[in-house]
Amino acid sequence: MKIEVIENVLKLNDELAEQNRTRLRAAGVPCIDLMGGPGCGKTALLEATLATLGHVMRIGVCAGDLATTRDAERLHALAEQVVQINTGKSCHLEAHQIGQALARFDLPALDLLIIENVGNLICPVGFDLGQSAKVGMFSLSEGDDKAVKHPHIVCACDLLLLNKLDLAPYLTFDRMRFRDEIERLHPGIELVELSAKAKDAGFLRWIQWLTAHARGAEHESANLSGAR
Amino acid sequence: MKIEVIENVLKLNDELAEQNRTRLRAAGVPCIDLMGGPGCGKTALLEATLATLGHVMRIGVCAGDLATTRDAERLHALAEQVVQINTGKSCHLEAHQIGQALARFDLPALDLLIIENVGNLICPVGFDLGQSAKVGMFSLSEGDDKAVKHPHIVCACDLLLLNKLDLAPYLTFDRMRFRDEIERLHPGIELVELSAKAKDAGFLRWIQWLTAHARGAEHESANLSGAR
Repeated sequence: MKIEVIENVLKLNDELAEQNRTRLRAAGVPCIDLMGGPGCGKTALLEATLATLGHVMRIGVCAGDLATTRDAERLHALAEQVVQINTGKSCHLEAHQIGQALARFDLPALDLLIIENVGNLICPVGFDLGQSAKVGMFSLSEGDDKAVKHPHIVCACDLLLLNKLDLAPYLTFDRMRFRDEIERLHPGIELVELSAKAKDAGFLRWIQWLTAHARGAEHESANLSGAR
Repeated sequence: MKIEVIENVLKLNDELAEQNRTRLRAAGVPCIDLMGGPGCGKTALLEATLATLGHVMRIGVCAGDLATTRDAERLHALAEQVVQINTGKSCHLEAHQIGQALARFDLPALDLLIIENVGNLICPVGFDLGQSAKVGMFSLSEGDDKAVKHPHIVCACDLLLLNKLDLAPYLTFDRMRFRDEIERLHPGIELVELSAKAKDAGFLRWIQWLTAHARGAEHESANLSGAR
């Protein structure tokens, strides 16, 4: 009985996620689900990303947290549109919350939507939100065992980021081991090592990936429209 | 119906936690539930704690993770007894898992048990494990907004730690603001700022708190035995 209820919850989530996906595709808006532990630098990455791309792309952000509007406040000046979702005690975003948020966005006025999930390496992974790509974020200060300890996020994502490279001189972190363990868990996935703070070469690779994904998702949307 | 099932799960957890509590009290073993986000330094703190107290107290560790025995391997040489719990996809430890772990410990041969919960600032908070005290851990590298973003762990704990003070010169972190927000959320709770790596004055305060708690819990156990 318990399992049946859990399956229904996940099944309902998947149905609502598919509705979100259809809505986003119809509007031609690619959507990134950015997941990572608390304090890995998701908001800092978004600040740097918006500062870099804000003049050439209209980017909306949907920020999830248990409480406060801190992230939305930080991003408000930079993003085209921002919606904050406060989950209360819930440890992840779900498709129905994104559905409510999408209704508040002016989607045709956006080129890209980034969802900043609740800071958590575990629970967000199981919930499809209707995104076009999932990005998982780690940071150097969390330690080099976090990928192997969290295999599900490593396997679920389309791109992985390792942030806070600027702290490398002050930390013990075996980047080769981290990279090898990710390759074993999810062969072929790209891992971008970067510093959102320093806006280094890795950060530029992230910007490149993001713009390429936005273009690809737009093409997909055009194809879908053409097929109708 | 869904809510009823969730309540039953939590009710069952609370019953099993109470069984764990009774068992630990009968054996005179105080038990800390150490909670914190991934990479805040829980295992590093335990390594330093065991290295400091290992010769005067017999400390057992129960380490929770989704996957791997990395933490147990790190602590094995230092702790009196170690049990690793791999939760699979579950984001927190539950009382039934601790019950199974307690059966593997030789409790009369321990003076203290520390449970290192799964790295997660959110989900572990709701699950009583039968501990005598809950300790919540943050770190400087996570950013100074993490307490106010995670009010439930701040309110649920008996002691809060802020780790990685050694990284202060390289990070932007408003310690006064962090401290004020914690005081607003949970008036009177002690926040210990420390570096597990540097074993500084804050670390010694943690050791002092831990030994005092162990003594207090022993007295409580003696009183309970006397009352029977």
